[in-house]
Formats: sequence, structure tokens, C-alpha cells
Amino acid sequence: MSHTLGSLAQRFGLELRGDASAPIDGVCALSPGQPGRIAFLASAKLRAQLAGTAAGAVIVGKRDAGALPGNGLVAPDPYVAYARIAALFDHSRDFAPGVHATAVVAPDAQLGEGCGVGPQAVIEPGAVIGAGTYVGPGCTIGRGARIGAGSFLTARVSVGHDVRIGDRCQAQPGAVIGSRGFGNAPSAQGWVEVPQLGSVVVGNDVEIGANTTIDRGAMDDTVIGDGVKLDNQIQIAHNCRIGAHTAIAACVGIAGSAVIGSRCMIGGACGIGGHLSIGDGVILLAGTMVSKSLPGPGVYGSTSIAMPANEWRKQTAHVRRLGRYEQRLKDVEARLGIDSKQEGERSEQDDL
Amino acid sequence: MSHTLGSLAQRFGLELRGDASAPIDGVCALSPGQPGRIAFLASAKLRAQLAGTAAGAVIVGKRDAGALPGNGLVAPDPYVAYARIAALFDHSRDFAPGVHATAVVAPDAQLGEGCGVGPQAVIEPGAVIGAGTYVGPGCTIGRGARIGAGSFLTARVSVGHDVRIGDRCQAQPGAVIGSRGFGNAPSAQGWVEVPQLGSVVVGNDVEIGANTTIDRGAMDDTVIGDGVKLDNQIQIAHNCRIGAHTAIAACVGIAGSAVIGSRCMIGGACGIGGHLSIGDGVILLAGTMVSKSLPGPGVYGSTSIAMPANEWRKQTAHVRRLGRYEQRLKDVEARLGIDSKQEGERSEQDDL
Amino acid sequence: MSHTLGSLAQRFGLELRGDASAPIDGVCALSPGQPGRIAFLASAKLRAQLAGTAAGAVIVGKRDAGALPGNGLVAPDPYVAYARIAALFDHSRDFAPGVHATAVVAPDAQLGEGCGVGPQAVIEPGAVIGAGTYVGPGCTIGRGARIGAGSFLTARVSVGHDVRIGDRCQAQPGAVIGSRGFGNAPSAQGWVEVPQLGSVVVGNDVEIGANTTIDRGAMDDTVIGDGVKLDNQIQIAHNCRIGAHTAIAACVGIAGSAVIGSRCMIGGACGIGGHLSIGDGVILLAGTMVSKSLPGPGVYGSTSIAMPANEWRKQTAHVRRLGRYEQRLKDVEARLGIDSKQEGERSEQDDL
Repeated sequence: MSHTLGSLAQRFGLELRGDASAPIDGVCALSPGQPGRIAFLASAKLRAQLAGTAAGAVIVGKRDAGALPGNGLVAPDPYVAYARIAALFDHSRDFAPGVHATAVVAPDAQLGEGCGVGPQAVIEPGAVIGAGTYVGPGCTIGRGARIGAGSFLTARVSVGHDVRIGDRCQAQPGAVIGSRGFGNAPSAQGWVEVPQLGSVVVGNDVEIGANTTIDRGAMDDTVIGDGVKLDNQIQIAHNCRIGAHTAIAACVGIAGSAVIGSRCMIGGACGIGGHLSIGDGVILLAGTMVSKSLPGPGVYGSTSIAMPANEWRKQTAHVRRLGRYEQRLKDVEARLGIDSKQEGERSEQDDL
Repeated sequence: MSHTLGSLAQRFGLELRGDASAPIDGVCALSPGQPGRIAFLASAKLRAQLAGTAAGAVIVGKRDAGALPGNGLVAPDPYVAYARIAALFDHSRDFAPGVHATAVVAPDAQLGEGCGVGPQAVIEPGAVIGAGTYVGPGCTIGRGARIGAGSFLTARVSVGHDVRIGDRCQAQPGAVIGSRGFGNAPSAQGWVEVPQLGSVVVGNDVEIGANTTIDRGAMDDTVIGDGVKLDNQIQIAHNCRIGAHTAIAACVGIAGSAVIGSRCMIGGACGIGGHLSIGDGVILLAGTMVSKSLPGPGVYGSTSIAMPANEWRKQTAHVRRLGRYEQRLKDVEARLGIDSKQEGERSEQDDL
Repeated sequence: MSHTLGSLAQRFGLELRGDASAPIDGVCALSPGQPGRIAFLASAKLRAQLAGTAAGAVIVGKRDAGALPGNGLVAPDPYVAYARIAALFDHSRDFAPGVHATAVVAPDAQLGEGCGVGPQAVIEPGAVIGAGTYVGPGCTIGRGARIGAGSFLTARVSVGHDVRIGDRCQAQPGAVIGSRGFGNAPSAQGWVEVPQLGSVVVGNDVEIGANTTIDRGAMDDTVIGDGVKLDNQIQIAHNCRIGAHTAIAACVGIAGSAVIGSRCMIGGACGIGGHLSIGDGVILLAGTMVSKSLPGPGVYGSTSIAMPANEWRKQTAHVRRLGRYEQRLKDVEARLGIDSKQEGERSEQDDL
């Protein structure tokens, strides 16, 4: 299927600048750009690249429209417009409907119209797969699991028994949805397994990254809201609830029963403690460790930052001596007849 | 199979309160509770929910027995009793014995009585699978690996060649037991691979979470003790030894040759350095980074805690200036004729 | 195939000490050592073990040659020599060439001479597999992917469409190369997926650990240089570039478009922010969080270190009070007529 600048403008409701008949057969970076392809300019930092681009057309915002060196599209949000146009050229999720001869589909599993089931995939009894959904090579879908319409499991994704996944979701290789929650009761003889009888409920339009794991609930379900985007290698423990449209970067761990609000942005490698609540619209900087509930909206951080190792060693030694520094300060204050402030150490410690 | 309150009391040696003939066909939360199901009360915080529960029966400790609003079981440890009763209603590990037609089992592999091998599973030559063990869909069992009796590999678990796993273990999807240890020798031409000729030995009653990885040893074996519970996405490097009944939460990384004692509790996202030793009964708070051996028992922490980002930036700036603050303190002390304490910076730095 | 001390000396260009005809049929640890096997001594700490070893021979450096209690080989680098000799006894990557009957190989996929394709593996249309490469059980190789000669994918490795991997690479179970980059554009209606149209290019002699994930680029490719060694559970985001011979320990997360130099050594559980650049030869201590570009070479750290929990609570409280301590110090200085130094808080905060 071929596209022109004019057809793209019409399809996505964008303002056309230049030659409507210019063919657009792909996307490219603004610099150097490629003839016949369309680039975008969304960041003021890259504005200087606009004049010299070799791109066949450029998607720009209103304020850069006057600086277009040739063909272009003017969009309220050039990055979003680019994303939608680029999707026309993304064939990574194309598939041929049908069940591969090597796939194992239980006789009573239900497959919607236009489903694809890849080689070596396994769909266990009672599972229900919605129309147009693809279950890629090596995926395993447990008993009674339900996946909605138009979803895409790339390869080697495991969906546990009775898990429910919505429409238009995608999961990358190695993702595990519905593993056993980590529940064990201590006893004198060691740990006694606590059965995890809940499931996982994933909303619509959810992305689940490679090797991300989502545990099933102990009694109630673990819940992932609509439009949630999960990067790779995230761990979501039993009974967590993630609010709609929250995005979580890679390597984040969320302990059991944590409740995350909607439209949060969680940076990479954050850790969130169990039974906490994080408000709507919270932003966590990368590496933040959360051990108390946080109201939203707000931006939070905690991590210390890389420095030369000898400086880091000195700093660490200073921090360890803070109690002694404070005592020395008190001694100085006493000598000067200054009344030392009451620092309330105890109550702050109780927070931790 | 149906249960009554009386049959449960007898089976688990618990004290019956109320109607022995009351049917119990599942478990439920204390609040709101469900008729015909049994709940439990283990935490004093939830005591207020007891009076209003709709549960058919409640498992309680001695001190709450008098407050039972209806049928109940009195247990020395209500949570452990609940776990054992709930297991009767957990069918997630039921399977039909036999080898699926699409599984590939080497002719000389040995399967014990009542084993199940799921679709697309692969069992390589010389492997030995104990009685009643289930090797789920898409699992790969390497040459000469041995798994004991009554173990359960849910799906897509990889067991490397010659790995030994005990009885009644379980592994969640994506777990890898016996990957190559990360051993490489530096040379002028780059890294030279150091063969990892050891294996992994996993004891009995071990749980291995989703996408957790356990590397084989360089020369000796990596050893996971009896009753160890490993959550998801844990990394255990070559030649580590984890003591019996230690529980490790998700996202923990343990570097090579670390020795962890028995009955430790390691919080989520901890990091443990190589060649360290951690004593029996050590508790690590979530996010703790361990770079020196720690005696046990004891509770250890290290992480900094989320705070509003502008406060965090100020705090970080203060910490960086600690050397200057100390100098200012010294200047003040000198002015007052106070002899500055010797802070022993050097020896503390040597610790790091 | 059998080896003698003399044949090993000749094969690897090492200096022979003792009986050339001594048979060597394996490797062993220096202590206690095993007759007929060869050990090595590379660390001065273990020198005391040399005299008492039962090993049939020992590989030593020049300065320990005189202390050999029996047969030995003298090597410029005993650890490298050991690694090369031990490889003779490592059969973990032996395989029988040919395509297993249960593997699914697209008719137009190309397999080089001597390739092996294990049970349940899937090779999609247009993929090209080099001579002598092994694609283990349960691996999935996407459309148009290319893998060079002599590479080894142990089991359950996923290679995405159009990914290119060089010669003599290896990947452990669960590794994912070419998952979708995490690109989503915010809009009023929620996140809009940004197609990830780049790929991943992996050089020669690269090791990729178990459950490590490497995302494809948004427009350009993600690039892993020659000789890079990646441990388990590493996350490499879209458009990262990792320089040749850099080694990265487990559980490291690298955010999008970060550029890492060559011959770096990244310790376990480090986090590296997006769009940063790390110079050649940088060493990051375990747990370091990098949020600014770092010049190389150099050693960097940042993490705080485990301490008893009550000490940690006190220290955390002290750190939180640093602003007040500084104010008290200023008050003391004012009383003494000392001019407080200008601390430049603002500029330091701007760094974060």
C-alpha cells in the first residue's frame, strides 16, 4: 500500500504544506533524512537540523511550520503524529491467521475469527482467544485463560491459568503473566506454601515487556489497568493494582499489594514496597526506593549518584561520622552558650 | 471431594468450634467473607472484621476463639492452618500423568511413575525425572539432569545439563537453572571464556520463581539448600551457596561464591557482593547493598528512601559538601581552642 | 581424545616442567587437587596451597615456577592458560548437526553447513543461520534474522525479526534479542505506541546471559560490539551502543540511547540513565547509579553500604537533618564573626 503526503494529511487530520502528491514510503531521522521518507521535529534542540534535512517531508508543530524547507505536515503534537504515521510502515506484528500444524490447541479452547497461533504454541483446555489475536511461537496459555481481541503475544509468553487479558494488548518474549504469588507462611518446620488462588486481570491496550513477570493474587486478583505500559524485566507481585495509563520503565520491582495510581511515570530500577499506595500522577526518578506511601501528583527521588570512587569512599566515611559531627557541633554550641535545637531523631527514625 | 468443618479439624489437628457438619467448599477473605467458605484471622489489625464476617467459618488463634461469631477452628498458627486448608482447594498443579505426543523425550531418559510431560517439552538424553513430577509445556531438561519426585515445573523452565533438583520442588515459567556461570579471564586480546564445569544442586522443597536464574559453578557446584524459597527475577551467580529455609524476595542479585546462611530473609532488590558470607538468620531490608560479610543473626539496611525530588536534590548537595562542613567545624573548633577529634577517615575508607 | 602434559604445553605454547608423558584428563581445584588433573595458581593468596596439592600438574606464573611440587606448566597468564586448557574438557556445547524432526524451519530459511537445530525450535522465513551454529530447543528466530558461524543458542532464546548476530556468540536460556523498544508518546488519550523500526546488531564473540533482554532501536539499531560479555538479567534499551570488549555483570539496566565505551567493566545491579555517554575503560562498582555522562578511564561508585538497621535508621535521620546542621554551623560562625563560605548549592542541584 502506497501513501502520499496528501493521503497522510487527510488520514490523520494534519495540515498539509507543499506537494500533496509526494510519495511517502517510510520514515527517517531528521538528520540526515532520506528522500521519499517522512521525518519529524518535536524537540527544540533539533530545530537546527530542519533546514538541512534530506527527508521527503517533515512533521512539525505550529511554531516550526514557517521554517519548513520543503514538504511537511503541521501537527498539534508532531511526535504523536509521527507515531501514528510510522505505524503504517511497521509490519512487525503482521501474521497469517490460522493455527500452525505444530501448535497444540485443546479441543475445547475457543479461537476467535482471524486468530493466529504460531509454531510450538500451547493453548490449554478452556482458554478463550479473541478475534484477531496472535499467540506466537512457543507461547503457553494456561487452562481457562482469556485473551481479548487484537492482542499480540510475540513469542515464548506464558499466560497462567484463568488469567484475563484485554483487547489490543501486546507482550514481548519471556513475559510471564500469572506466575504463582510468593506467599509462604513461616512455621517451625520451615516455610509452608500459601496457595495463590487469585488471578491476574490485565485491561485493554496494555504493553508487557520482555521477561516481565506479573504474579497472580493470593485470594483477590492482581490488576493492571487500561493503557498501562510495562517495559522489560519488571516484577509485579501478588495483589498489586496499577492504575490506568501508568508507564513503568525497565527493572522496576513492585512488592505485594502495592497500589499505584493512574498516569504515574515510574523510572527505571525503582523499588516499591509492599502494601503502599502511590497517588495518581506520581513521577519517580530512576532508582528511587519507596518504603512509604506517597501522595500524588509529585516528583520523588532517592538514589545517590555516581561519582569517582575515591570521592565516593570519602563521602561514605563522612556520612558514617554524622553522629560525631553533630556531637562536635553541640559541644561548640555549648561552649558558646547556644541552646542546641531539639532534632527529633526518634520520630524520624520511626518513619523508616 | 467435599469437606466439612469437622473433617478439616480432624485432618489438621485443630480445635473445632461450632457445627462439625458445616460444609466447607473453599476459602475466602475475612471481610466480607462468603458462606460455605473458611476465612482466617492472623493479624490483630483485622480483629474488628471478625464479628461481621459472612464466612462459613473462621480459623483463629487461641486468644480470638472466644470472639468467634459462628463456626470456627482454633489453631496454634491460624495462617499456617489456613495455608494447609487452602491447599485442598488449589488445583493449579493438578495434571494428567503421561507424556504428551508433542513432547520430545530421549529414549534413554528415565521417567518415574506418574510423571507428566507437557506439550512441546524436551527431555534430553540421560535425564532422570522422579515419580509424580510434572515437566510442563515448553520446558527443556538438559542431558543428564536429575529431578526428584513430586516436583512441578510449570512451563518454559530450563534445567541445564547435569543439574540436580530434589523432591517437591517447584519452578515458575522462565526460570533457568544451570545457565553458564559468568566466568571470563581478561587477556590482551579481550575476554577468554572460562569453562563452567560445575553444576547446580537444588535441595528438596525449593521454590524457584518466574524468570529467576541460577548459574552453574565454575568447578564446584552452586548449591541451593532444602526449603529455600526464591521469588521472581532473582539472579544467583556461580558457586553461591544458599542455606536451608532462606527466603529471598524478587529482584535480588547475588554475585559469585557468596555464601548465605540458613533461615535468612532477604528483602526485594537487595544486592550481595561476591565471595561474601552472610550468617544464619540475617534479615536484609529491601534494597540493601551488601559489600562486606555480615554476621548473623541481625537486621541490616542501607538504602536511601524516596522523598520529594527538590528535597532529594538539596540533600544530595548537602552530602556532597560534607567534607567542607567538617572543615568549617574544625575551623570553629580551632577558634575556640577545642581539639578536633581524630576521625580515622583512612581506616573507614579501607572498608569499602 | 586424551591429553598429556607435553601435548598441552605444545598446543598452548607453555613451558613444560616435569613429566611430558603425564596424562591429563581434566581440571581440578588447587586444593585439594586430583591426580591426573591439572590445576592453576593465579592468585598470591592461594600460593600456600601449592605445596600440598594432589593435582597431577599445576599451571603457574613465572614467579611460582620454582615452587612447583611436581609437574607443571609455566604460563604468562596462568588463569588464561587454565581457561584454554579447561575448554578441552568442556562438552556442554557439543551437538549433533542436523535439524530435529520437531523443529519448524521455514522453507526459505538458510542453514549453514554443520548447523544444529534442536527440538521445538522455530526458524521463521528468511532467517540465515551460519555454519556450525546451534539453535537449541525452544528457541525462536524471527523473520529475516541472521546469525553468524559457530554461535550457540543454548535453549529458549528469542531472536527478533531482522536482528543480526555475529560469529562465535553464545546466548543462555531466556535471552531475548530484539524485543520492542519501549517507545510511547504521551497524548491526552493516553500513550500512543511509537513503532520501533530499528533492529539489534550484535558483533562477534559476544556472550548474552540468561534472561538478558536487548531491545531493538526506534529508528537506528541497538549495537553490541565485538567481544562484549553480558551476564544474566541485563536490560539494554533501544538504541544503546556498547563498545567492544566491555563486560557487564548481572542485573544491570541501561536506559535508551546510552553509549558505553569499550573495555568497560560494569558491576552488578548498576543503573545507567538514558542518552548518557560512558568513556572507554570506565569501571563502575556494583550498584552504581549513573545519571550523568562519565569520562573514561576511571572508577566510579555511588551506592550506600549495608549496616545494622538501627545504625542505618540513625544515619538516615542525620542525613535528613543536614540542612539544619548547616544552619547551626552558620549560626556558630556568625557568633564567632567567621564569614560563612558560599556553598553554591544551586549549581550542584542543577547537576541532578
